[in-house]
Amino acid sequence: MIKSPSSLEELISALRCLPGVGPKSAQRMAYHLLQRDRQGALHLSHSLKHAVESVKHCAKCNNFSEEDICSLCSSGRRENDLLCVVEMPADLLMMEQAQCYRGMYFVLMGRLSPLDGVGARELPLERLLKRAQELSCEVILATNFTVEGEATSHYIATMLRANGIKVSRIARGLPVGGELEYVDSGTLAQAVLERRAVTE
Amino acid sequence: MIKSPSSLEELISALRCLPGVGPKSAQRMAYHLLQRDRQGALHLSHSLKHAVESVKHCAKCNNFSEEDICSLCSSGRRENDLLCVVEMPADLLMMEQAQCYRGMYFVLMGRLSPLDGVGARELPLERLLKRAQELSCEVILATNFTVEGEATSHYIATMLRANGIKVSRIARGLPVGGELEYVDSGTLAQAVLERRAVTE
Repeated sequence: MIKSPSSLEELISALRCLPGVGPKSAQRMAYHLLQRDRQGALHLSHSLKHAVESVKHCAKCNNFSEEDICSLCSSGRRENDLLCVVEMPADLLMMEQAQCYRGMYFVLMGRLSPLDGVGARELPLERLLKRAQELSCEVILATNFTVEGEATSHYIATMLRANGIKVSRIARGLPVGGELEYVDSGTLAQAVLERRAVTE
Repeated sequence: MIKSPSSLEELISALRCLPGVGPKSAQRMAYHLLQRDRQGALHLSHSLKHAVESVKHCAKCNNFSEEDICSLCSSGRRENDLLCVVEMPADLLMMEQAQCYRGMYFVLMGRLSPLDGVGARELPLERLLKRAQELSCEVILATNFTVEGEATSHYIATMLRANGIKVSRIARGLPVGGELEYVDSGTLAQAVLERRAVTE
């Protein structure tokens, strides 16, 4: 039986760590890189190593950062009386692009999703609580309006209110099932403006 | 304006070298690796570097190989009077799995595809011709039965026959175990057109 070179086999199996990449895609990618873009492959190899070594999480907002405290959290020009909870860094960037919010952030880096093995313990909820108590401010929940995002929002709201923290949720001006990352800035700004108190 | 860490931005842009990966997928992949699979990312980084450094092309069949001459070409147990031309290494593996062929191979590592910028000059046709003349044997064209594969096959057949080399094409028709009722009309029409005499 003929076999591929072992370093090629290893590359194909290593590419499987990328989300959404199965055996056929991995093979196609490996062939493409070795046949047409060795320069790109080396650049990707270097970037992966460099990112893994230098990207960590901001001690305050939990966003990706190369410093202990990210530039947003250490900036003196943000308001300290609002803490906005988002699922992913891309959501934070969308919030900033909407230019509707000048407060602090907390990035969950995920959402409650039992089917993917992400329960409450897998999210940094202790740190979120500590951060909210530290700022003693209103917390705005800006998780997605998907089933998982809503569950996450509900869970966090319950936890924070049990600790006497005021919680609000961005308005459902977003379409049901919509995701922050893909919405237009005007809609997002409106949703922040019309956030409602969580009373129950 | 808030910005992502530069090493994260660099990783996202480096991931774009993978075929079929756009800006959104690259972002999703980068987040996934940094958040959930740093081990996998380091392994991928290493595998990319190792593969680029050690995988080259066999001097005879042009397949990927870590040696100058791959194990198939250097094996003494292959027949020297047949040369089978395939598009990609995956096609060679399929041929081997079918256990129907004991001759040599030549892997084009692509196909004529002007829309993707692959013309006759981008394929190693000179080397194929040299190899065929060296073996002075029959060449079996086993490129795909797609538009590009057919064009490639036609081009190579013309070139080889102009140099006095015997050329054949693998048969087209109904699959083994196939039923007329379920086969597409193009295949059936071709099978009728290319019918062969029943000689006993």
